[in-house]
Amino acid sequence: MKPISLNYKYVLPFVSQKEIDNLLEEKREQIADIFAAEKKQSDVLGWVDIDSMSDALLLENIKKKAEEIRENADVFLLIGVGGSNQGARAVIEVLGDNKLQILYAGNNLSPAYIHNILKQIKGKSVYVNVIAKNFATLEPGIVFRVIRKYMEEEFGTVEAGKRIIATGSPGGSSLEKLSELKRYTFLPFPHDVGGRFSVLSAVGLLPIAVAGIDIYYLLAGARDMKKLVQTTKPAENPAVTYAAVRNLLLEKGYSIEILAFFEPLLHYFSKWWIQLFGESEGKEGKGIYPTACSFSEDLHSLGQYIQQGQRILFETFLHLDDQGASCQIPLEEGDIDHFGYLDNKNFTFLNESAFYATVKAHFDGGVPGMILNIPELTPYYLGQLFYFFEYACFISGTLLGVNPFDQPGVEDYKKNMFKILGE
Amino acid sequence: MKPISLNYKYVLPFVSQKEIDNLLEEKREQIADIFAAEKKQSDVLGWVDIDSMSDALLLENIKKKAEEIRENADVFLLIGVGGSNQGARAVIEVLGDNKLQILYAGNNLSPAYIHNILKQIKGKSVYVNVIAKNFATLEPGIVFRVIRKYMEEEFGTVEAGKRIIATGSPGGSSLEKLSELKRYTFLPFPHDVGGRFSVLSAVGLLPIAVAGIDIYYLLAGARDMKKLVQTTKPAENPAVTYAAVRNLLLEKGYSIEILAFFEPLLHYFSKWWIQLFGESEGKEGKGIYPTACSFSEDLHSLGQYIQQGQRILFETFLHLDDQGASCQIPLEEGDIDHFGYLDNKNFTFLNESAFYATVKAHFDGGVPGMILNIPELTPYYLGQLFYFFEYACFISGTLLGVNPFDQPGVEDYKKNMFKILGE
Repeated sequence: MKPISLNYKYVLPFVSQKEIDNLLEEKREQIADIFAAEKKQSDVLGWVDIDSMSDALLLENIKKKAEEIRENADVFLLIGVGGSNQGARAVIEVLGDNKLQILYAGNNLSPAYIHNILKQIKGKSVYVNVIAKNFATLEPGIVFRVIRKYMEEEFGTVEAGKRIIATGSPGGSSLEKLSELKRYTFLPFPHDVGGRFSVLSAVGLLPIAVAGIDIYYLLAGARDMKKLVQTTKPAENPAVTYAAVRNLLLEKGYSIEILAFFEPLLHYFSKWWIQLFGESEGKEGKGIYPTACSFSEDLHSLGQYIQQGQRILFETFLHLDDQGASCQIPLEEGDIDHFGYLDNKNFTFLNESAFYATVKAHFDGGVPGMILNIPELTPYYLGQLFYFFEYACFISGTLLGVNPFDQPGVEDYKKNMFKILGE
Repeated sequence: MKPISLNYKYVLPFVSQKEIDNLLEEKREQIADIFAAEKKQSDVLGWVDIDSMSDALLLENIKKKAEEIRENADVFLLIGVGGSNQGARAVIEVLGDNKLQILYAGNNLSPAYIHNILKQIKGKSVYVNVIAKNFATLEPGIVFRVIRKYMEEEFGTVEAGKRIIATGSPGGSSLEKLSELKRYTFLPFPHDVGGRFSVLSAVGLLPIAVAGIDIYYLLAGARDMKKLVQTTKPAENPAVTYAAVRNLLLEKGYSIEILAFFEPLLHYFSKWWIQLFGESEGKEGKGIYPTACSFSEDLHSLGQYIQQGQRILFETFLHLDDQGASCQIPLEEGDIDHFGYLDNKNFTFLNESAFYATVKAHFDGGVPGMILNIPELTPYYLGQLFYFFEYACFISGTLLGVNPFDQPGVEDYKKNMFKILGE
């Protein structure tokens, strides 16, 4: 099937083709190393080989468990934070079928939030998936304690055990031990995959399947994108080009990247993308600050800044070639609302017009732009997108000269907090 | 009642007290002009005098209409974009009582979104509030046509007229004419108030009242903050200090301001704030890029960047002195989850610990921070917050040397779009 493709013509007056070519030539060996990295031993590259994260049996088990949950649950509660939540949520918000309600907890410490979650699950048939690689992070850890107690009181210990699925590091983690004790279903969070790269493992796949989404089709898209990015030479490779262009823009002072889209359903996808790039590149005083805009809404908010504010930002547009079923604009006799010029048009056409108008206006205003053309919003193309950005992030962080797989800065507030909490 | 207060000690190593004092001295006349501006004729300062936007009769009418809607509606649909939507939504998401469902449309052109709205209102008792100052903006204009047709088909023309409230410019606007023709209730969008400053007019007040929130209490908070910012001399004035500090930080290369909070309910408040500052200051190649983080969730996403990425950002924390009812952490025998150090603590304490830990860690990492202490999340304090930021934005834009009340850049994409649409 047609892959997603990159159009970077709206960056060319800001970054020349020659600069891109030179960078790729200069970094030739580094890029070749990345392409060869999968073959090396590594404790952080498990995500590169999609099939290493799940075998046929695990996928079948995930599918069966998801079917059981879909048959029996009113509510599916995902307890996890960061990479343990954002990948699945990105897909579910776009493609979930709403057969059952999916709620998210363990991603903050707000008392109002946990009260609201307890209120929403009360009296319902609840299944829980707690996801935590090392089960040391406070938010999911402590919220799971609250929910576990609720489940045991509500359903009894044995039935609660059947309704809880834990996803964590296999091989002796405290979550695995707790699962054995309480007889939870236990799914593997691969050792060699960081949270922000984990969406195509059991971490993302169980919740996605619970939302009625075809995980095989999602993985097929990712596999096809893997083949594309690993077999296309750098100069024609969309992931390499995207990574090179954003690094060149950063060198020229474009310090903010806006992921922009005209389909509000992509909001949670942008949150996944923000974590991926922010956590992978924001270190050693370096990195592009990643943020997102949901257009056309935000044209009436940040639009003014993007058009005429400091020239320190660039945009990456997620453009849908096919927006799905449209909605016709009804006729209004006598043009009483003064929108007569839109008679007989439809929302797809209006939204597409807003997209082209925006790309051009921002470009004319001094904002470099790249466009990722996505044929349609299906599991297959979300799979392509996940792999595209993960691989591009690997390349981009390497070009920037940082380790894209660690997150040492996240420990700093935790240390302060443990001091306060007397741990 | 105790007002919200500003703590700026975590900016002091980055900006000295002397620099703040010097700036205030240097700009003394400009600031005095701002304080005197209310008394002048102006076509953009209607929001300064809160009571000029609504008299007792209008407030009474808004309250009565809201009560009628609360008695009869399953769904209240707000059609509006930018300033016509974000102020009300900010309050409703925090304090709304969920007696009826409140939906938002006219804020994008996505075909999937409008399909979903039509699906959600089908078969329900629907009331509509369309809000558009000049009724020339495409998104609310065309979505209102779709919804108007739906209402007329579903309820008949007469009943639809009773269920639709239009908020627009009085004195001959096309929305006013349409309202006369169709017999809608018509509420005034004040001529001398821009969208992003309109939340305390009928624009925000009707939807807020429909959500069961006390608008008198909201206005009382705003009035008290008005008095505070207009009667406190610059050196002790929180709005003036906030405005001065952020301009000094910008001069030193801190180009991104993160509005940070530990209560996810404040998400839509941050969207209102982003529009207010982004649209008021992002012009002439200037301005701070405003963005937001919902902690502790985003500590597991942008936290790494904030801690160790480019030192181009500062934070403004919205801190709640009182987080409302807490939630106790249940005991777990035998410390089987390894979170035993949290036994007998509660979520308020954990969330507060995360807040202090974060302020300190980010400060130590080179991120200047200001803290706005908010006694509690009530209509009164949201009123204070709105007025505080509106007034601070007026001062900040003036110190920056831009007109904080225009948005010329928003026209650029519209011009391109009208060309494509053949208007």
